[in-house]
Amino acid sequence: MAKSKLFFDVVASLDGFIAPEGMDLKHANDPDFKQWLSQWTRLQKWVFQQRFFRKNLKLGDGGETGHDNRMLEETFVRTGVSIMGKRMFDGGERFWPEEAPFHTPVFVLTHQTRKPWERPGGTTFCFVNDGIESALGQAREAAGNKDVRIAGGANAIQQYLNAGLLDEFTIHYSPVFFGYGSPLFSGISKNINVKIRNAVASKEVTHITFEVER
Amino acid sequence: MAKSKLFFDVVASLDGFIAPEGMDLKHANDPDFKQWLSQWTRLQKWVFQQRFFRKNLKLGDGGETGHDNRMLEETFVRTGVSIMGKRMFDGGERFWPEEAPFHTPVFVLTHQTRKPWERPGGTTFCFVNDGIESALGQAREAAGNKDVRIAGGANAIQQYLNAGLLDEFTIHYSPVFFGYGSPLFSGISKNINVKIRNAVASKEVTHITFEVER
Repeated sequence: MAKSKLFFDVVASLDGFIAPEGMDLKHANDPDFKQWLSQWTRLQKWVFQQRFFRKNLKLGDGGETGHDNRMLEETFVRTGVSIMGKRMFDGGERFWPEEAPFHTPVFVLTHQTRKPWERPGGTTFCFVNDGIESALGQAREAAGNKDVRIAGGANAIQQYLNAGLLDEFTIHYSPVFFGYGSPLFSGISKNINVKIRNAVASKEVTHITFEVER
Repeated sequence: MAKSKLFFDVVASLDGFIAPEGMDLKHANDPDFKQWLSQWTRLQKWVFQQRFFRKNLKLGDGGETGHDNRMLEETFVRTGVSIMGKRMFDGGERFWPEEAPFHTPVFVLTHQTRKPWERPGGTTFCFVNDGIESALGQAREAAGNKDVRIAGGANAIQQYLNAGLLDEFTIHYSPVFFGYGSPLFSGISKNINVKIRNAVASKEVTHITFEVER
């Protein structure tokens, strides 16, 4: 049986940030701080226009059905399990709807011990305290034939990339600048070699997929 | 007469650097420092394979003649004048061949006063002491119907971008990580809006061209 793939798939600003400055629990009630909410909305604008995303988050009918939509849907369908860092989970616990948008097991990297937290719609958050490789082992087992996604944040992605564990990744570059924020790539090892699989420019986003050379 | 365009065109690592750590005058004789020379060579690998680049730098016959080559040649042909920062010039004064690869006037942003420096092959370096807008005015005049390129470095590009003076730009993403170096985009204003013109993935590089919305 082919081993499932480990990948990530993120939206980044042109200056390489996946979240704007000020998008954190401290400023969750203060969307005017550094205009973080409007910055986030500009970054994700194309996502909110896609039919699959709207359906998955129950935002209503309609939406685009072209290449951008197919990419979102394919990424969702291939994902058997997601892994995420604690800070991303904390933000999501605050902002995701009750029916969290994963609909699979999600392994959260944390030092906190906590019982699995089951949400309506098939998402169960499991808290892993013994490191990224253990989380990956558990994720692979739970994912079966499907792939494992590092959902974020940047720190979790960087740890898996620098450890040489990732197989491939997709960056959706939105044509916006943040100036400051959470950089997707920070301190990445020079020894990580990748090759380009393909790039597609849609009207409002450029998708680039890379394979990590092992 | 249509005003000539102001643009930049750079090769960047996936983590957004246009030069590796250690690539400076201080370490010019020490290519093993942070492996800056081999990092630079990895970044520019696809460029050295192109027929136009090889011919322009008199590196010998042969070379690729596909899309990557056409992009390099078109960028050269459209460029009537280049503008560059003082640090880029200092590095180039050290490393460019006697017949510098511009073959046009080049305006250098500097506080130093210095007479124009004419090189064989049509490159003349002119030193401008009164700011980026003055340099642009002089460059436009000298460029005639051709376009004006901000050659680099990152700081000069950032100044022109943040001042709202750029019309368009192309980033050639090489599939390498540097970890540290000169970031192409640092502190870019949130108010700069761009749209994607097109993206092309070649075997070893992804070219993305953006237009700045004015």
